[in-house]
Amino acid sequence: MQSIDLRLYVVTDRGQAGERGVGPIVRAAIEGGATVVQLREKQCDTRDFVRYARELVEICRPARVPLLINDRVDVALAAGADGVHLGQADMSLADARRLLGPSAIVGVSVRHGDEVLAAERDGANYLAANGVWATATKTDLGSPLEWEGLRALVEASTIPMIAIGGIDERTAPLIREAGCAGIAVVSAVMKAEDPRRACMGLRHAFEYATP
Amino acid sequence: MQSIDLRLYVVTDRGQAGERGVGPIVRAAIEGGATVVQLREKQCDTRDFVRYARELVEICRPARVPLLINDRVDVALAAGADGVHLGQADMSLADARRLLGPSAIVGVSVRHGDEVLAAERDGANYLAANGVWATATKTDLGSPLEWEGLRALVEASTIPMIAIGGIDERTAPLIREAGCAGIAVVSAVMKAEDPRRACMGLRHAFEYATP
Repeated sequence: MQSIDLRLYVVTDRGQAGERGVGPIVRAAIEGGATVVQLREKQCDTRDFVRYARELVEICRPARVPLLINDRVDVALAAGADGVHLGQADMSLADARRLLGPSAIVGVSVRHGDEVLAAERDGANYLAANGVWATATKTDLGSPLEWEGLRALVEASTIPMIAIGGIDERTAPLIREAGCAGIAVVSAVMKAEDPRRACMGLRHAFEYATP
Repeated sequence: MQSIDLRLYVVTDRGQAGERGVGPIVRAAIEGGATVVQLREKQCDTRDFVRYARELVEICRPARVPLLINDRVDVALAAGADGVHLGQADMSLADARRLLGPSAIVGVSVRHGDEVLAAERDGANYLAANGVWATATKTDLGSPLEWEGLRALVEASTIPMIAIGGIDERTAPLIREAGCAGIAVVSAVMKAEDPRRACMGLRHAFEYATP
């Protein structure tokens, strides 16, 4: 099973990146300590998606930072990314694993204990607890998990878990306290004035700060 | 190179199928003489898309009718479909061929001579001339090709071509006259009161009727 440094997991958002573009922000994020990058595109054509993925492969591979593709196994295969991240409405983990092979990294979003068990059974490399706190990026997740909910998910899991949703320098230490292997962020990096410094701050907050 | 009977190529539309569902319409279409089925989904989640594709594999495979997936190589691979159909904004033909292998069927939508040449070069099994006449299903294609435009595309191509866009029993003979290997239809079957009879009529019109 692929081991993966999940400490600072950066999810892209082309809208939030704006005119600066996703590529330069990802490059800066890696300089600042991002340990995983997930390319997330919810609107674009497949041809553009593959092009965006190749752009990030060129940035992530030399830095030995895994690049994961949100949802799209075809895009991951075409661009030679390191794996995929799957939501509960995306391709099933079992199908994705079969298509990508045993050495790919496959992560799964979870919000409930039964989703944790299913993802473990089907060979997820990591889990992402979705919607820990309320956030402007994702508005369709129902009520936030909150710290207690996150803690319960971590305790139910035998594989590494990250948390996503409203995480910033202030809340990052709480995620570590809950037993997570890392924090996942979108706007905290995509909208940051200085994405490199933002990542340095998030890394420090997650690893060393007290809640 | 895979040879394929393109005479009556039925493209699905879940909205047009309505409450009857796509599966039963496809089953009836095959009984009526459909020779290829393309599953096209433009809105749904990947997990649903794979489920829909598996449903049609179960229907098409026993009838030895190839099932192609619109755009999504991952869905085709997961469901074990026979190939994909690619628009110009979908995954590139070269990438799709590499992922699907030499025995998969890969078709490409074309509207211009340079797209014909590129698709031939990259190993398309067939081409689909898009937007021959105006249609309610696709409204983003610019001005219709018309018969002369279709004829020019057929003449530019060395591989089989089908035509799509506003084709019915009345216009099908004109498509044969233009040198096409088949007709592709959406609403003429998806919205038909009796899809089986609609297909019988379209097959007859394409193969035997005079323009």
